[in-house]
Amino acid sequence: MLKALKEQVFEANIALTKHHLVVLTWGNASAINDDRDLMVIKPSGVQYQDMKPSDMVVVNVDTSKVVDGYLNPSSDTETHRILYQQFKDVGGIVHTHSRHATIWAQAGKSINPLGTTHADYFYGAVPCTRLMTREEIETNYELQTGKVIIETFKKLNLNPLDMPAALVHSHGPFTWGKDVMQAVDHAIILEEICYMQMFSCMLVSNLGNMQKDLLDKHYLRKHGVNAYYGQKG
Amino acid sequence: MLKALKEQVFEANIALTKHHLVVLTWGNASAINDDRDLMVIKPSGVQYQDMKPSDMVVVNVDTSKVVDGYLNPSSDTETHRILYQQFKDVGGIVHTHSRHATIWAQAGKSINPLGTTHADYFYGAVPCTRLMTREEIETNYELQTGKVIIETFKKLNLNPLDMPAALVHSHGPFTWGKDVMQAVDHAIILEEICYMQMFSCMLVSNLGNMQKDLLDKHYLRKHGVNAYYGQKG
Amino acid sequence: MLKALKEQVFEANIALTKHHLVVLTWGNASAINDDRDLMVIKPSGVQYQDMKPSDMVVVNVDTSKVVDGYLNPSSDTETHRILYQQFKDVGGIVHTHSRHATIWAQAGKSINPLGTTHADYFYGAVPCTRLMTREEIETNYELQTGKVIIETFKKLNLNPLDMPAALVHSHGPFTWGKDVMQAVDHAIILEEICYMQMFSCMLVSNLGNMQKDLLDKHYLRKHGVNAYYGQKG
Amino acid sequence: MLKALKEQVFEANIALTKHHLVVLTWGNASAINDDRDLMVIKPSGVQYQDMKPSDMVVVNVDTSKVVDGYLNPSSDTETHRILYQQFKDVGGIVHTHSRHATIWAQAGKSINPLGTTHADYFYGAVPCTRLMTREEIETNYELQTGKVIIETFKKLNLNPLDMPAALVHSHGPFTWGKDVMQAVDHAIILEEICYMQMFSCMLVSNLGNMQKDLLDKHYLRKHGVNAYYGQKG
Repeated sequence: MLKALKEQVFEANIALTKHHLVVLTWGNASAINDDRDLMVIKPSGVQYQDMKPSDMVVVNVDTSKVVDGYLNPSSDTETHRILYQQFKDVGGIVHTHSRHATIWAQAGKSINPLGTTHADYFYGAVPCTRLMTREEIETNYELQTGKVIIETFKKLNLNPLDMPAALVHSHGPFTWGKDVMQAVDHAIILEEICYMQMFSCMLVSNLGNMQKDLLDKHYLRKHGVNAYYGQKG
Repeated sequence: MLKALKEQVFEANIALTKHHLVVLTWGNASAINDDRDLMVIKPSGVQYQDMKPSDMVVVNVDTSKVVDGYLNPSSDTETHRILYQQFKDVGGIVHTHSRHATIWAQAGKSINPLGTTHADYFYGAVPCTRLMTREEIETNYELQTGKVIIETFKKLNLNPLDMPAALVHSHGPFTWGKDVMQAVDHAIILEEICYMQMFSCMLVSNLGNMQKDLLDKHYLRKHGVNAYYGQKG
Repeated sequence: MLKALKEQVFEANIALTKHHLVVLTWGNASAINDDRDLMVIKPSGVQYQDMKPSDMVVVNVDTSKVVDGYLNPSSDTETHRILYQQFKDVGGIVHTHSRHATIWAQAGKSINPLGTTHADYFYGAVPCTRLMTREEIETNYELQTGKVIIETFKKLNLNPLDMPAALVHSHGPFTWGKDVMQAVDHAIILEEICYMQMFSCMLVSNLGNMQKDLLDKHYLRKHGVNAYYGQKG
Repeated sequence: MLKALKEQVFEANIALTKHHLVVLTWGNASAINDDRDLMVIKPSGVQYQDMKPSDMVVVNVDTSKVVDGYLNPSSDTETHRILYQQFKDVGGIVHTHSRHATIWAQAGKSINPLGTTHADYFYGAVPCTRLMTREEIETNYELQTGKVIIETFKKLNLNPLDMPAALVHSHGPFTWGKDVMQAVDHAIILEEICYMQMFSCMLVSNLGNMQKDLLDKHYLRKHGVNAYYGQKG
């Protein structure tokens, strides 16, 4: 069942370790099928070196039931599921505790755009969610984690594909993309800008955002109808 | 004698180097047998690349005498021994001078919980011991090092398996677990949170602890009777 | 066409990844031929692991037209081209988003000489350009990026071979040299001094420049007619 | 001539790259023979990957003349030579621009002992030299570099084997030992403590030295007649 998607999700999870974004079993990647009724996700708490594509778990997006696979799905499955339901263009999601993105999440701070590396992929500040309430933490915590991301995007009027990342307060980053490999790329890039922004802010306290014109230029030379970066299909 | 445990302790010591937690010969791992009368520990000052499982040293936990092995045991043997005597659920212990845990130990500061990475493994602040007295340093120093850890745990009423790490002031980290491989995992995780906490605190000075509700949620979804992370045996 | 130069430029681009100066497809290296009418540059947005020497693109330095190659040249081609036109001794150029050079560029700060590592290669502060205007960003952005570097060098009266690097404000570093491999070396060295300067400045706030005498001594023992470092041809 | 010593010096130089203490051709290791009339040192400016044991250069310690070898010796030869003349127990010397030791040298600050990692190898603060005068820089610079180290050790009444390292102001570290491999170990350890001290000082501003009792305990359990660390010969 969904053999090609399992293979992709497996490769995405392995890519996270190769790029040093996960320690031990921390982190998970998932993808949704074209009909958007089934998602494939990493099993919970399995060592990366023992994992095979066939270990990936298939979950029904509406009911949250496991429909294929013999292992428990990631404990963060509910977060992925609600994000797929609300973010209709998103085809793959990644969650890690990568060092520098987590540093910002622990500080509860959004990541302001300070340079073109950021502007090439994230069209504005990468948002950090509000603190969750006691009720949200105690009941359906993982689902509520997804909801607080969605709430943040609604409040800030953000388009998920123009802002393919969020920090969950006191927790860590989620990234996504049109497919799971793009979600991995965004996890790599987010980690990179979190490292650089951290030290730019130490060099100059109260460093302001980059120019809006430059942000537009870089984002739009890579995305949208007038993009001219890379090779045409 | 204790061939399987020697093998485990050897593998644990090698894992410390593979995870970049030790430089040169700094660091040691040990385990105790089920009867809790014999411990197996790394020899003192031997290069990791030359070490074999049969080089591990067996020490009597009551008398501190070497009962098997032709090399001197780690100079920190007395610290391990007293911890095994007092922490009855602990099956393995690790000591390193890993960079970021040592940075906090040198600063003499406990590591406050700032995020879920911490909460998943350490149920509260990881404590740093008080300064040792001149007498403790001059007489039975290594034994006293263990005693000051134990004193800290009594004073703070900490359960060693819920708080599987301590920083020794001006020195470095000790971690432990139900077995030696779990002690290694805790050394890896401690290093990770020490890195992240350090920089979160630089981003926001006087950063407060994470919410108690979130700490509980994350610790208890991985530990105790209601845990639901990972695969069931 | 220009087979040897394509090989060199390919090797230079690969060297950037081996030295951890580029992430994903960020970064590009180019070289100019002896007649200074043709430049060879990396294609735009191609994965490094898929790249071959024959993928390198040949561009006419006067007209900016691709004269050989079936892929789009780097989106930064215009920056390289104008630099070759104005910096007549430069034979190779490298652009990266390497972490620590980019940190300084994002902070909009020049890198003052603080030690002999800097002085061995950069004869004074490595300059950071001014912010670009809205007009420069919106029209011929990549060409204007080169022009603002050239403007900076004119204003500061800098010789490109004595100062083989510049930071573009809110963007990242460009380096160059007599050939493309020297440009790569300068990218490596710039990254190194950006790392070290950043932390030296954190250890001592308002740290002044190194002594002018020491800067002269180190630069001139490696460069110019009285150099005595290394082996003679 | 001195084949075994050339082999050792070659291995020491290679070890510096393997431990990431040198970038490009920065750094050099040397050793002196038992008669203390001949020293073996790395050639100047040669790529590590091309270097062979037979490339090492033999220099007369009294006259500074090359007595064996077809390449120029390291440009820092005069510094090594004067150190061998004055530090009679030193058998090997290493110079690098390793990142964190250089950060402290650029800041012009000695490295205070903050923990047992430091105390295990360096018996007190690792000193940073004074600024050199214009005359010292302009005439016999490399020899004067050695002299300013020696002056520092005399003024502070330091024994070179109890303090096997110095930072040269605005430059970088020199380390030494009873043989060249011990000098390499000290370069590794110095880098480690420079990293850790830097961040401990950021966590707690104006962090005081570690207790003198603890410094004594750790240094003396590894060195001198009552040492009990490691295996006996």
